[in-house]
Amino acid sequence: MALAHKGLTQDDSTIEYVPCSFTEKDKIAFANYDRYPLLQDGETIVADSWAIAEYLEDAYPEAPSLFGGARGPTEFLNAWADSALHPTMIKPILGDVFEHILPKDRDFFRQSRTERFGRPFEELAAEWADDKDALVAELRRALNPVRTMLRSRDWICGPDGPAYGDYIVFGAFQWARSISPTALLDESDPVYAWRGRMGDLFDGYAETTTMYPL
Amino acid sequence: MALAHKGLTQDDSTIEYVPCSFTEKDKIAFANYDRYPLLQDGETIVADSWAIAEYLEDAYPEAPSLFGGARGPTEFLNAWADSALHPTMIKPILGDVFEHILPKDRDFFRQSRTERFGRPFEELAAEWADDKDALVAELRRALNPVRTMLRSRDWICGPDGPAYGDYIVFGAFQWARSISPTALLDESDPVYAWRGRMGDLFDGYAETTTMYPL
Repeated sequence: MALAHKGLTQDDSTIEYVPCSFTEKDKIAFANYDRYPLLQDGETIVADSWAIAEYLEDAYPEAPSLFGGARGPTEFLNAWADSALHPTMIKPILGDVFEHILPKDRDFFRQSRTERFGRPFEELAAEWADDKDALVAELRRALNPVRTMLRSRDWICGPDGPAYGDYIVFGAFQWARSISPTALLDESDPVYAWRGRMGDLFDGYAETTTMYPL
Repeated sequence: MALAHKGLTQDDSTIEYVPCSFTEKDKIAFANYDRYPLLQDGETIVADSWAIAEYLEDAYPEAPSLFGGARGPTEFLNAWADSALHPTMIKPILGDVFEHILPKDRDFFRQSRTERFGRPFEELAAEWADDKDALVAELRRALNPVRTMLRSRDWICGPDGPAYGDYIVFGAFQWARSISPTALLDESDPVYAWRGRMGDLFDGYAETTTMYPL
């Protein structure tokens, strides 16, 4: 979405997307890095979503700004997505992730998530699955700051159009929809309508990914 | 702090601050409004913190920007403070508020908070006081997005200096410190150091308020 915002997706022949599974570290070994996402632009290699956004903003200053002029507050929105949104969103659908990853990645996933959460993965996934309704409600509450924005305007980042803060929140929903049929939002929620608008951007760019129906 | 940021506090004789207690609605009756804060600037009356910030930004465009050019992402930060920070901060110190308000305001406070929280005020305040340590820990977790910013820079809103997002978060801490001696932050927390820097701004402007020592 950030590439599209910068007008870099209009000629698709200039971009190569490389899907990488959890354990396919060989695909990014050239970058001397072991986590996704990763961007290579000519000789430049940039890792981490936020660093990529900053790079795109600086390398393509003539294209529409991803930050609307103020990088700092958008970085806060990014930090909120990392530390408050993602950890809340994964709970009701943790088990679904396991069902959708490549079989060769399952041992890695089970072990790394057991370490991250400090509890046996299967035990935690089962507990959260049992508690799914409450955890979806918790996610909906966590979205209150976003919802407040969307009650009075179309985009999180401002009245005039979406920007990076919209993409980073939308990215979380795209991830969820890629691995789980769970309805995370109620249809009457302003966040639901915003998610639909995001899907329509750039000629439905986001809808070209394989996902569960809304 | 927003007034100081705009350079409007340099000549204090041009500003009159009017402290208002919960039930002193007569002080703002002229504005046909019943909640604080309220700003009167000449013939213009503006109510609500965010609306006041927007007014100051628009009315004093030559002064340093409160939003660094990007109102939308700062509005998200403001919405986060309203919906995630304030409700988490009040829990461990709810009983302290009651101890510090004017006796004539206590009935109003008890009744309005009982309505807001949907439970008898005394019951809730006692339960939260018993659970204070866990609730302080919950607040510290809720501050993660802010902490992420402050690990790598001095201000929430950017590397170059504070802006409205800093003031709105700082305001929550000033409120807490005005009514409770509870240590909400650990001294090793980057948020603690930031709060100290905020207190030093504008020649220690914020420290002129009567508060508990840090």
